Amino acid sequence: MTATLITNIGELTTNVEREGDPTGVLRDAAVLVEGSRIAWTGAMTDAAAAAATRTGAVVVDAGGRAVIPGFVDSHTHLVFGGDRADEFEARMAGVPYAAGGIRRTVAATRAATDDELRARLTGFTAELHGQGTTTFEIKTGYGLTVEDEARLARLAAEVTPEVTFLGAHVVPAEYADRREEYVELVVGPMLEAVRPHARWVDVFCERGAFTAEESRRILAAGSAHGLLPRVHGNQLGHGEGVGLAVAAGAASVDHCTYLDDADVAALAGSDTVATLLPGVEFSTRQPYPDARRLIDAGVTVALASDCNPGSSFTSSMPLMIALAVREMGMTPAEAVWAATAGGARALRRDDVGAVAPGMRADLVLLDAPTRVHLAYRPGVPMIAGVWKDGERLS
Amino acid sequence: MTATLITNIGELTTNVEREGDPTGVLRDAAVLVEGSRIAWTGAMTDAAAAAATRTGAVVVDAGGRAVIPGFVDSHTHLVFGGDRADEFEARMAGVPYAAGGIRRTVAATRAATDDELRARLTGFTAELHGQGTTTFEIKTGYGLTVEDEARLARLAAEVTPEVTFLGAHVVPAEYADRREEYVELVVGPMLEAVRPHARWVDVFCERGAFTAEESRRILAAGSAHGLLPRVHGNQLGHGEGVGLAVAAGAASVDHCTYLDDADVAALAGSDTVATLLPGVEFSTRQPYPDARRLIDAGVTVALASDCNPGSSFTSSMPLMIALAVREMGMTPAEAVWAATAGGARALRRDDVGAVAPGMRADLVLLDAPTRVHLAYRPGVPMIAGVWKDGERLS
Repeated sequence: MTATLITNIGELTTNVEREGDPTGVLRDAAVLVEGSRIAWTGAMTDAAAAAATRTGAVVVDAGGRAVIPGFVDSHTHLVFGGDRADEFEARMAGVPYAAGGIRRTVAATRAATDDELRARLTGFTAELHGQGTTTFEIKTGYGLTVEDEARLARLAAEVTPEVTFLGAHVVPAEYADRREEYVELVVGPMLEAVRPHARWVDVFCERGAFTAEESRRILAAGSAHGLLPRVHGNQLGHGEGVGLAVAAGAASVDHCTYLDDADVAALAGSDTVATLLPGVEFSTRQPYPDARRLIDAGVTVALASDCNPGSSFTSSMPLMIALAVREMGMTPAEAVWAATAGGARALRRDDVGAVAPGMRADLVLLDAPTRVHLAYRPGVPMIAGVWKDGERLS
Repeated sequence: MTATLITNIGELTTNVEREGDPTGVLRDAAVLVEGSRIAWTGAMTDAAAAAATRTGAVVVDAGGRAVIPGFVDSHTHLVFGGDRADEFEARMAGVPYAAGGIRRTVAATRAATDDELRARLTGFTAELHGQGTTTFEIKTGYGLTVEDEARLARLAAEVTPEVTFLGAHVVPAEYADRREEYVELVVGPMLEAVRPHARWVDVFCERGAFTAEESRRILAAGSAHGLLPRVHGNQLGHGEGVGLAVAAGAASVDHCTYLDDADVAALAGSDTVATLLPGVEFSTRQPYPDARRLIDAGVTVALASDCNPGSSFTSSMPLMIALAVREMGMTPAEAVWAATAGGARALRRDDVGAVAPGMRADLVLLDAPTRVHLAYRPGVPMIAGVWKDGERLS
């Protein structure tokens, strides 16, 4: 079994709580990787003893730089055709964001071949890995026919185990006057066809997309077929998304910009993570969600990219951290936790998001002495090394 | 002489005005480089004929992607010791920004050896090149003794011809009660010592830094010694910076957040560029300058990073473009022009910032079909290739 010893880590974020610090920072630390898993973490002074039994371990000198867990991006829409740069440009010139733009990507996605979508996914996977993201979710939702939704889920499953069925992304144009029929399709044959490729079921519960009643029905149908629920909610205005997510025991409710006190209290008393997606607010000029209010109330917060060609065409978790600190009142430590351990909670994963014996060896070496630099140096590529399942990717 | 033919460029930004478009976009274009200069630009269909006389040209297929001129970052403070991540973290937690933090970097810079500063400069040069910046300015201003300012200028000149004397960055702690003596030092022995290594003289004309009268005196002394003037002004409040920059014929006045109508009119009627530095506003939560107002009034606008360890520790010109579009009302085309041709104007350079025969072959191949993607995909590394003086750097 191959082994790697990363030594001379100036600041190691373990996300294993320690002396009241949920990020469990160790200074002058080392990490031993065996095969695909973390075998040991501890002080530099103990590293030689820890590694002694592993002959032939590759030694990587971090040179005093920081190491964090690989980013866990729990919300993306990476399987699609085309892009919408023109719509972005028009929006920046003053045209308001509308969810209807999704239909353009639906048309481009249906027109794309499997190989075209596969090439795109391969490119995005490399893009995410290069930026330190080692676990990511992908939603369907640009197919919106039985065949196309199944195809998107199948292709997404080639690059990640975290595939989400989002047939309830938007009512497609051809069902504009028959939305009930579309919901029937989603909870019937579409769910049936997608289920073998997916782990999650999601619904866009928002004015202009799906009502609370439709959303509940879709989540229930998904759950009955063994898919775990998650929800898009409260993005463009106040709605019932958060309430129904908590009631359904969803792993996460995503966006959470417009919340009342009851929503915050419901989240705080639940296992449902509030996943915040500041790339959307950056690229649509909407108000940012109030992360500070959520954290202070005891809600578990995750950060994700929402990478999609309409409202947030960025896959940069470092930028999400910089925006969370600049715009949403999070400390750098909270933002890094939310982008790693928070994402793992939002995906109900206990094997990623932390650096501890037995966890997957998903690690990022920063080209900086501290994780604060992810927010302090916005836009600058700061990723000096990435390991996924113990294998060095860059 | 080595030659490179870049073919199959989906969108070439030349910045040579064409049919009312100041960015002079060509579609399906090609560029021929000979030695360190651009030899030819034109339509793909004419590329073979243009290249026919250059046997052995390296052919690079852009694959339909976009090419732009290398970024010209006309405002950085890259020669310094230490960093101020802790101050950034405190500021994000609510402590207001104050220029006094500069003194901490002064202490760290004075304590650094030449080799330490040189290693830092080498690292930053690679960082900038990797992000597509092929021309950049560096200011002194963290030495603030005759010896240290001369040392910083000499070291900066090892990596760029655009070195700026900024002895008037802040009054150093040891002169706190003797500011007139400090100004005497700046216009006398310090200027004398720095002059051989610098092209520009700059002054931080702002409440808490230098008065308008002191600023005028410093610029005049610099000009008398053959240095060209530029000014930091109107960053933290309204002041006389813009007015004195225009009166002095400065190449640029930088920041320009607080302007009255007279300032805008003065800029519009001058050759002085307004250089906007949105990385500062991003990292200090100050209001952004109003680029739209300036452009609509006919002012020439440049974008630069202000990369420094206090108020903006980013060197990312793509992020500056994304912020300019998101926060300052610029179109993507205006932002790309400002980050290339605008920077060249701000440095009074007519050999960079455009892609035309005779210009330096400083080119960036984007990993995207259009330059709009620089704003549309914020934070994502989009640089697929960089040439400086005809040589491929990445």
